[in-house]
Amino acid sequence: MSHIKNNTEVARDKARVQNETLKVFLSEFFGTFLLCFIGLAINAQFILRHEKLNQWINVNFGWAFAIVFSVMATAKTSGAHLNPAITFMFYTYGNIGLVKMFVYFAAQTLGAFLGAAGVYGFYYEAINHFDGGIRAVVGSTATAGIFASYPAPYCSFFGAFLDQIVGTGLLALFVSAIIDPRNEVPSHLHALLFGGVLVMIGCSFGMNLGYPINPARDFGPRLFTLLTYGSDVFNSPSAYYWIAPTFAPLIGAAVGGWLYHAFIGFHLSDPIKKDYIPINVAA
Amino acid sequence: MSHIKNNTEVARDKARVQNETLKVFLSEFFGTFLLCFIGLAINAQFILRHEKLNQWINVNFGWAFAIVFSVMATAKTSGAHLNPAITFMFYTYGNIGLVKMFVYFAAQTLGAFLGAAGVYGFYYEAINHFDGGIRAVVGSTATAGIFASYPAPYCSFFGAFLDQIVGTGLLALFVSAIIDPRNEVPSHLHALLFGGVLVMIGCSFGMNLGYPINPARDFGPRLFTLLTYGSDVFNSPSAYYWIAPTFAPLIGAAVGGWLYHAFIGFHLSDPIKKDYIPINVAA
Amino acid sequence: MSHIKNNTEVARDKARVQNETLKVFLSEFFGTFLLCFIGLAINAQFILRHEKLNQWINVNFGWAFAIVFSVMATAKTSGAHLNPAITFMFYTYGNIGLVKMFVYFAAQTLGAFLGAAGVYGFYYEAINHFDGGIRAVVGSTATAGIFASYPAPYCSFFGAFLDQIVGTGLLALFVSAIIDPRNEVPSHLHALLFGGVLVMIGCSFGMNLGYPINPARDFGPRLFTLLTYGSDVFNSPSAYYWIAPTFAPLIGAAVGGWLYHAFIGFHLSDPIKKDYIPINVAA
Amino acid sequence: MSHIKNNTEVARDKARVQNETLKVFLSEFFGTFLLCFIGLAINAQFILRHEKLNQWINVNFGWAFAIVFSVMATAKTSGAHLNPAITFMFYTYGNIGLVKMFVYFAAQTLGAFLGAAGVYGFYYEAINHFDGGIRAVVGSTATAGIFASYPAPYCSFFGAFLDQIVGTGLLALFVSAIIDPRNEVPSHLHALLFGGVLVMIGCSFGMNLGYPINPARDFGPRLFTLLTYGSDVFNSPSAYYWIAPTFAPLIGAAVGGWLYHAFIGFHLSDPIKKDYIPINVAA
Repeated sequence: MSHIKNNTEVARDKARVQNETLKVFLSEFFGTFLLCFIGLAINAQFILRHEKLNQWINVNFGWAFAIVFSVMATAKTSGAHLNPAITFMFYTYGNIGLVKMFVYFAAQTLGAFLGAAGVYGFYYEAINHFDGGIRAVVGSTATAGIFASYPAPYCSFFGAFLDQIVGTGLLALFVSAIIDPRNEVPSHLHALLFGGVLVMIGCSFGMNLGYPINPARDFGPRLFTLLTYGSDVFNSPSAYYWIAPTFAPLIGAAVGGWLYHAFIGFHLSDPIKKDYIPINVAA
Repeated sequence: MSHIKNNTEVARDKARVQNETLKVFLSEFFGTFLLCFIGLAINAQFILRHEKLNQWINVNFGWAFAIVFSVMATAKTSGAHLNPAITFMFYTYGNIGLVKMFVYFAAQTLGAFLGAAGVYGFYYEAINHFDGGIRAVVGSTATAGIFASYPAPYCSFFGAFLDQIVGTGLLALFVSAIIDPRNEVPSHLHALLFGGVLVMIGCSFGMNLGYPINPARDFGPRLFTLLTYGSDVFNSPSAYYWIAPTFAPLIGAAVGGWLYHAFIGFHLSDPIKKDYIPINVAA
Repeated sequence: MSHIKNNTEVARDKARVQNETLKVFLSEFFGTFLLCFIGLAINAQFILRHEKLNQWINVNFGWAFAIVFSVMATAKTSGAHLNPAITFMFYTYGNIGLVKMFVYFAAQTLGAFLGAAGVYGFYYEAINHFDGGIRAVVGSTATAGIFASYPAPYCSFFGAFLDQIVGTGLLALFVSAIIDPRNEVPSHLHALLFGGVLVMIGCSFGMNLGYPINPARDFGPRLFTLLTYGSDVFNSPSAYYWIAPTFAPLIGAAVGGWLYHAFIGFHLSDPIKKDYIPINVAA
Repeated sequence: MSHIKNNTEVARDKARVQNETLKVFLSEFFGTFLLCFIGLAINAQFILRHEKLNQWINVNFGWAFAIVFSVMATAKTSGAHLNPAITFMFYTYGNIGLVKMFVYFAAQTLGAFLGAAGVYGFYYEAINHFDGGIRAVVGSTATAGIFASYPAPYCSFFGAFLDQIVGTGLLALFVSAIIDPRNEVPSHLHALLFGGVLVMIGCSFGMNLGYPINPARDFGPRLFTLLTYGSDVFNSPSAYYWIAPTFAPLIGAAVGGWLYHAFIGFHLSDPIKKDYIPINVAA
């Protein structure tokens, strides 16, 4: 409204990136970095304080708002996928091409890797205080669970794989419902609603693995902990468990998204074009 | 906006169901399946982790968001009742006919039955870990409460029956208030508000039976557990207790809905027709 | 939209109350009944399960949603005060007259009294299970705190009185801010925001008395417990403590409301009349 | 709408402050007073009841709503900074001048100081009950943590300083994203969303110092406790720790705000001017 541009507008005139691919990369990288930097810090507060400061409800709402605001910040520049499984779902929808999908994957994984590095640095003193400086993947001083998911003791590989299909499937299903324009959910509420979906999944399908449901969020930090915790992070409880949170979400997201369409989305009527009338009074 | 249709739009052109009854059946079946698949998994996380991972607040908010998103996904195809008591309330309002009511009942009960089967399969390893493979309806290793409701020890049959009338009555009362067009609550907020009503009922009238307040959500899963837990599921604490969550909600919903209209709804003025003006400044 | 009226519309044509005073009475009576019936049941779940089922966060969010939906249901018929302190604040604003204020007071107190009776009946079995059938106002089996407020042991009468001035003052202050048309908060969010104010007060000023901050909500149920718990309900810890939650809120609401106006409300500019433009892009 | 002005409108005609600086001062003073009066009372309920009444989730949501409503009340009179770090961020944006920045600083710090005094008076009986009347900054009866932040035992000065840069940086980053008009977040949701950001930060970066992330909120109350707790409040654990929550937020806010613009804000397209169309159906 002011006719004199403020400092951010002046800087924008100089620094604005017009290249679509670079803009998307910056956005997905930064968004996934933020999501993981904040989310893994939530896990740290849960584990390092023996589940007494952050309780499970803090984990649920904390991660939910981490999604809400990471998505809100990056929605207009890259569509705010921040999750390779969601990107893959859009690929099966024909909304993005194969090359672009890999640009998303790279940006997301790099962002998650650096998010883990950030939390490791930030909570370095606290982790040392907790484990006496000896990093452990299992046992009472284990802290690797801050960064990547490890299954509950009773959980078979098949159980872990199914867990990630179901959790990510529900995420993709409801994301598809919320953004389906025929459902007329106002776009300014989308990010907030995605947060609610996360709370719901955390309260229902979080017990086995801790609902990573995002390959970048699990694999990026696991790779980082390879450097700091050693190769046990790819061997707990066995050599192939890390496959579940890394690949099952891709299957889950495609299945979940298309299930929504098969049962609901295909059969929705097109709304009658109308001006914005918030109420209809039967008269 | 794109002139080239994406894959979901192409598939829709081929697979779209135009038959109204089938569309409603698919929507209510799928919606109630999702509600129960997610909701019973929430109960599983509450019971199988000794009320320490999921606490009561997680149960309240988890079920609330399960309602929110199941309703949001199915609102445009079937009105998202997902509960025979709500369907019956609309029947007493004259909004749907007798035959259609039974279509809703069948779809909802089938969805709830399969939702229970899904949770049983999904958490099969976790349940075995908890009860050593011996399914129990009562006692310290009981897990039948994941699926259907069992009254608190002090609770008489009359108390259980009243509990379900009151809980479902409040649900129906506030649903009727929220959707009454004369109250001018924007329709894009309805699903979210129903979730809030569920949190409220869970915090106030959830102590006796665990607020099933939905005959399909209780009877469908109870029927499923007949196959896996045996006939005790219809005999705990006595042979007729299951009647309370199965039939009392129908009475409650009709009473609650009409009470809203008797005290409030009938006496609302019709709003003056106006353009959308979000603020009125007294000047 | 249908040209055939449904059953609720047909009944409305016959039963509609046009008398303004009766409509207000019905609305405030029913709204305060609902608020107290639900809210006191929340307290019951907190006390009767030893603060382990409902924890404080359930009390905060439960009461918040009880406010949200009681207000939403009665906003268009009576303005949804549901609290004599808020009614008194509007009286000091000159928005309602003296006679009407007492109509509000009577409806609210009667509603709260019957809400307490309803909870007593509803949780009769649970209360007997808790106290062995011997009603107590103090001690480890005390349940009178379900219905009316009793101060923490360290709390002087002056402390209790101040507590109710401050708690109700903040409520009135923020209610006045939210409904001030110059703040342009959309009216469909008012009820939800009042709920948020309640969560906030419960987390900050709920420790001394349990934030009744509503004379009807405290005095009506206390009067009911006089019949069931005996005269100790007006004598714990001393004969005059009940005065604090009954009269201090009136002072608090007037002070809080006018403080908002003195520091903020008076100095707000009138908005420029404009069409609804949700975004302004500085260009 | 009424043509007869009510009492608040009549009083406004007489008492309205037109001087811009005084209006801003009143608004920021009153808003920061409310924020700290409510927020420090939340801390009191957390500490004085041994983290059992208020748990961490109550602290997170309580402070969040304290932000929401303090911001909502003062948004139109002063922009509702209520935090010198946010004011400094706007200074680096060129949105406010140097003199005005110090007006904000003074009003905020005075408000926070008096908010602390208010909580000290309000909870005087409860604090005496807790510590037997002997004020302590450290140890099992310490209550100084109600007012200002003290680092966790493992936390170095560098760790505390970094903590405040990161926490305030995230706040500033997401505030900048939410208010960026190119993100088209409706302004009536801004205050609510700021509350969500606070919940998120409390769940992720609250473990080291308790997320003060606001120099006025920390320094004002610390100054007040100098009068009541003695000089230990500036010496725990060492003489220079108080510098972290007082100065690091200024750096953090500037860095966080500009990081948002560097990665996202600069590269956003200007929206196409259009009428308010809430849905776009691909047809």
